[in-house]
Amino acid sequence: MIIVMKPGAPEEEIEAIRARIRALGLEDLHMPGSERVVLGALGDERVLETLNLRANPFVEDVKPILAPYKSVSREFKVYDTVVRVGAAEIGGDAFVVAAGPPAIESAEQIRAVAEAAKAAGASVLRGGVYLSPLSRFDPEGRGPEALEELLRAGAETGLPVAAEALARAQMEELGGRVQAIVIGEQNMRNFVLLDAAANAQKESGAAILLQRGAAATVEEFLLAAEHVLDAGAPDVALVERGVRGFGAAGQHLDLGAVPFIKQRSHLPVLVDPSAGAGRADFVAPMALAACACGADGVLLDVHPAPKTALAGGERALDVAGFNRLMAALAPIAAAVGRSL
Amino acid sequence: MIIVMKPGAPEEEIEAIRARIRALGLEDLHMPGSERVVLGALGDERVLETLNLRANPFVEDVKPILAPYKSVSREFKVYDTVVRVGAAEIGGDAFVVAAGPPAIESAEQIRAVAEAAKAAGASVLRGGVYLSPLSRFDPEGRGPEALEELLRAGAETGLPVAAEALARAQMEELGGRVQAIVIGEQNMRNFVLLDAAANAQKESGAAILLQRGAAATVEEFLLAAEHVLDAGAPDVALVERGVRGFGAAGQHLDLGAVPFIKQRSHLPVLVDPSAGAGRADFVAPMALAACACGADGVLLDVHPAPKTALAGGERALDVAGFNRLMAALAPIAAAVGRSL
Amino acid sequence: MIIVMKPGAPEEEIEAIRARIRALGLEDLHMPGSERVVLGALGDERVLETLNLRANPFVEDVKPILAPYKSVSREFKVYDTVVRVGAAEIGGDAFVVAAGPPAIESAEQIRAVAEAAKAAGASVLRGGVYLSPLSRFDPEGRGPEALEELLRAGAETGLPVAAEALARAQMEELGGRVQAIVIGEQNMRNFVLLDAAANAQKESGAAILLQRGAAATVEEFLLAAEHVLDAGAPDVALVERGVRGFGAAGQHLDLGAVPFIKQRSHLPVLVDPSAGAGRADFVAPMALAACACGADGVLLDVHPAPKTALAGGERALDVAGFNRLMAALAPIAAAVGRSL
Amino acid sequence: MIIVMKPGAPEEEIEAIRARIRALGLEDLHMPGSERVVLGALGDERVLETLNLRANPFVEDVKPILAPYKSVSREFKVYDTVVRVGAAEIGGDAFVVAAGPPAIESAEQIRAVAEAAKAAGASVLRGGVYLSPLSRFDPEGRGPEALEELLRAGAETGLPVAAEALARAQMEELGGRVQAIVIGEQNMRNFVLLDAAANAQKESGAAILLQRGAAATVEEFLLAAEHVLDAGAPDVALVERGVRGFGAAGQHLDLGAVPFIKQRSHLPVLVDPSAGAGRADFVAPMALAACACGADGVLLDVHPAPKTALAGGERALDVAGFNRLMAALAPIAAAVGRSL
Repeated sequence: MIIVMKPGAPEEEIEAIRARIRALGLEDLHMPGSERVVLGALGDERVLETLNLRANPFVEDVKPILAPYKSVSREFKVYDTVVRVGAAEIGGDAFVVAAGPPAIESAEQIRAVAEAAKAAGASVLRGGVYLSPLSRFDPEGRGPEALEELLRAGAETGLPVAAEALARAQMEELGGRVQAIVIGEQNMRNFVLLDAAANAQKESGAAILLQRGAAATVEEFLLAAEHVLDAGAPDVALVERGVRGFGAAGQHLDLGAVPFIKQRSHLPVLVDPSAGAGRADFVAPMALAACACGADGVLLDVHPAPKTALAGGERALDVAGFNRLMAALAPIAAAVGRSL
Repeated sequence: MIIVMKPGAPEEEIEAIRARIRALGLEDLHMPGSERVVLGALGDERVLETLNLRANPFVEDVKPILAPYKSVSREFKVYDTVVRVGAAEIGGDAFVVAAGPPAIESAEQIRAVAEAAKAAGASVLRGGVYLSPLSRFDPEGRGPEALEELLRAGAETGLPVAAEALARAQMEELGGRVQAIVIGEQNMRNFVLLDAAANAQKESGAAILLQRGAAATVEEFLLAAEHVLDAGAPDVALVERGVRGFGAAGQHLDLGAVPFIKQRSHLPVLVDPSAGAGRADFVAPMALAACACGADGVLLDVHPAPKTALAGGERALDVAGFNRLMAALAPIAAAVGRSL
Repeated sequence: MIIVMKPGAPEEEIEAIRARIRALGLEDLHMPGSERVVLGALGDERVLETLNLRANPFVEDVKPILAPYKSVSREFKVYDTVVRVGAAEIGGDAFVVAAGPPAIESAEQIRAVAEAAKAAGASVLRGGVYLSPLSRFDPEGRGPEALEELLRAGAETGLPVAAEALARAQMEELGGRVQAIVIGEQNMRNFVLLDAAANAQKESGAAILLQRGAAATVEEFLLAAEHVLDAGAPDVALVERGVRGFGAAGQHLDLGAVPFIKQRSHLPVLVDPSAGAGRADFVAPMALAACACGADGVLLDVHPAPKTALAGGERALDVAGFNRLMAALAPIAAAVGRSL
Repeated sequence: MIIVMKPGAPEEEIEAIRARIRALGLEDLHMPGSERVVLGALGDERVLETLNLRANPFVEDVKPILAPYKSVSREFKVYDTVVRVGAAEIGGDAFVVAAGPPAIESAEQIRAVAEAAKAAGASVLRGGVYLSPLSRFDPEGRGPEALEELLRAGAETGLPVAAEALARAQMEELGGRVQAIVIGEQNMRNFVLLDAAANAQKESGAAILLQRGAAATVEEFLLAAEHVLDAGAPDVALVERGVRGFGAAGQHLDLGAVPFIKQRSHLPVLVDPSAGAGRADFVAPMALAACACGADGVLLDVHPAPKTALAGGERALDVAGFNRLMAALAPIAAAVGRSL
């Protein structure tokens, strides 16, 4: 950590900071310049943060040298983590496709999607059990009933299932039942929910698919994953699904995060082009791009009849569009050395 | 709502949409142009959203005409809502100052801040009971113990108290005890928590101070408030506290939201310059600006010794700085016709 | 165009607006609602903009229905525009690779890159003749001397050449010499320069490669291209190269813009992953993603020895890295039905 | 400057970097850690940038310690720079108001605004001589004719005048005539134009009002100003006018930049609430906020009849609104210790 003092910072203030650094058992560096003094501290920067040096009015800036995360980093674990969702392996040789409807509307609907997903080569069935309404006219999801339908469709097709929990009680409900729990973007920093997800994984082995918050930097995203790993749940896949911006869809699918995370972290990375593109027309190109740039898989919204969908129809592929995308994905996956 | 069809959309598709609009009891408009057909629908647009027209592949774009919120809008309620927090009135004649430490660290600390707040003319005491850690090295707050200390400091100084709840259990704990419950930016769309807050208000009368999410547009912010109002809790104050951007602090305090919300909504608006500025040096100018542009009050981080604060010290004012700010606020408040 | 009046707008104001719409020869619509009146106007919305209706204090909002551009739109010209740069065709069957150094440093350097580019299958040689310094310690480019070296390297390898002009005098200098003129992101709305580029094309036939501004929406990007087309220069390729955001590199390469522009416009789209990724490590994955999502080509920074580059070394590929990327691109291009 | 090496960087690479640092006459630091080596270099970081260390594949990150600008910094010049525009002093005791129409439409129009400006206490007359059209339906400004009208209106009212130049030829035309030259946001990094502006100041003494680019960080803004100062033109005022974002107006007026720049730089800061708010309704609150947070003045769009304005009518105040704003500004200015 580098501590840039303001010009004219008094000598005793500088010495006091150096003493606090050494008191933490860290090495301190003193770099006097012509205009200002710069201090350094070598060691675990997360411990240094407890010194709260930014609060010192004589400190102009504090610059971390090292990443603020550790458990999720490549240095901590060199080899790629492979996250198992039933028989599917996220981060392994195969490019994983998880497909399903934004909202589970009926047993028939989810079964139709499950069969299409299975037939086209998807390896995970996802579906909206609980939804996150933007207004009270938006549906909230059919909850337990939808969960049963999802589990049945998964069992009938042999596909493991993934669903999102928005609150601790929902997490407990899903915990022992589904193979993967989704944490949505708006809950990325909801540590109560992250802890509940970690508990669910410890009890049932369910994978955790953690979405990046729409206002989160990649570093904050990795810190949220770190929280889950440190809570005892190592099987976490990261999901890039778009950040707020001024793109056509009001957000940008930040595919640049994929190689960045791959370099810094051992965790696998998925992309959600349905959420990120915001419109069905653009889902396929973004899914192909995700595969090409090294993502370990995609989450897709698929619906038998998007025009009549209860939620998210504007971004859901119909079965024909989904099949076309799967056919287009195969050679891209092969080009980057992966099976589908 | 305006529905722009793609060029070449078939006539039967157009007629089907018109029929669905009329089936909802709304008036439809047909505007054929040289290149494409444009349709209109007059009536409650939130009902129209259920038609999910964006999911139709022949629809190029759907443009709402009216705001997607109603209960929070000026048209629905012309006069300003005044939200009571104990004796303080947010949205009334006075510019309300709520002050307190980022984290409540001890009975002595919160009492010192309470006394300073009282002496300087603040009318609400706030304090961090539960915190939202970014990493596991950040403190999580002292919870029940901190709550008792906050309540005692409030009682001793005669100030009403405000604190943030991050989860439903915390909401229930704070519910009957504090005069105002804060919903943090990362929970703006956490509808489970919003519902719990609404329940707390219905049972205990506590005001709700709802922060804008760091990735939220003003419209999404108003929709979140609408959710709370529609859940039966009318006493909501909106808190602008910065959105993610590329400003000096990594975010922008969007003061433009203040007059915008004032025009569109009857709800009062607070500003949190401590969160928005991110650094103590810039809190005072932003607080003065908030008052000048019409905000109904500010939330301030104040700490007796920011350099040794457990959390948020870099953005907390010390007591002398807080007193200077209060002195500077008085003539600004007077200039915009308010008392302090 | 839809004109939403404020509640309580006086009848005479509404009638005056309707009269102005009709006076322009357009059809007007009157849609009275329970709370406010909504007006419509059918016809060329760019003409309607001259009515300046947003300036009317009784107007709450003005919503365009149609895109504000015409010449660049798919409706205006259904078939893809193919832009020729010497023998290379941008927007045709081949995925076009333009490669070259951020700054042309010497005849030897540019010849080395040209030979590597030629050998690996690139079809355009690009190079920095004039640079855009951020500070006075940054180089400004070697100008005429660099131009001669670029032209010679192009001639020797048989590659057409592309270079950026930052000002009108530079545009005139490059005009008759290079096969493609680049307009940088910071000049996207510099209409003096756009006009000079259009003139250069009319005189010499040079293609124009127009970069998207870092703060520009896709719509503003298309409007800038429209300006060039309307000035008589039809051979324009659009270059997505990243918008300002809070990504790892301080910006987001907005690949979502590629399918969006392809749907709305007939112009070809290139991607600059060197600028967009900001760091050589991430250039290859982003180039593969660009190809997968439908871009017509990429602009790449290639340098024989990035570590000693005068400018942009951090994002330039060395020759080995460039060769690896070209090998990886071939199967991706094939997968999307293109040659390399 | 801190250089973070990748884990496993070879010893000879590290030593080579240290040798290059020392060869520049700078002091080097070697900080070996458990996982990676961190190097430091003390001295002028702008010189260090020429080492291009980010281009080294064994370097993970390069972190500047000091600001990349010097001439504009507080350390370089402790006292506030006061920029004279005729009799007006930007950065002095008075809060400077520059008012005028977005486009100068006629001698009568600009004279009407000039008289209103003079009567209400504004001290600079501004007006659009050349405009920056977004599409070819937007006006481009009346150029020389408008300039003569502006100069005459200024002379008749005794107000100094300010106008924007979009290109070098325009800069030369305005140079000896106006008291202040505006560089628009889209030209912030147009160094050809910045150099022309510096020349104009050296010849005629005209002040330069430099707008922040809509995608620019504050640091990039200060670097652009540094370029002008280093080119020999010290009389530069910085204009915050909004950055691209997802606010109500599609951008955020970043008032936080005002105290930030005031702390880091000796240059005065103006705010353009007309551009930043985007709509006349919100101009007054933002102007008051700008004054309250320490800006040295505002640029205002004022038009005798905004409804019929040729350009920018939606954000222009009419004369009555302008007078109300001036009346409201007076006590705010007094509250922050300034005259109007």
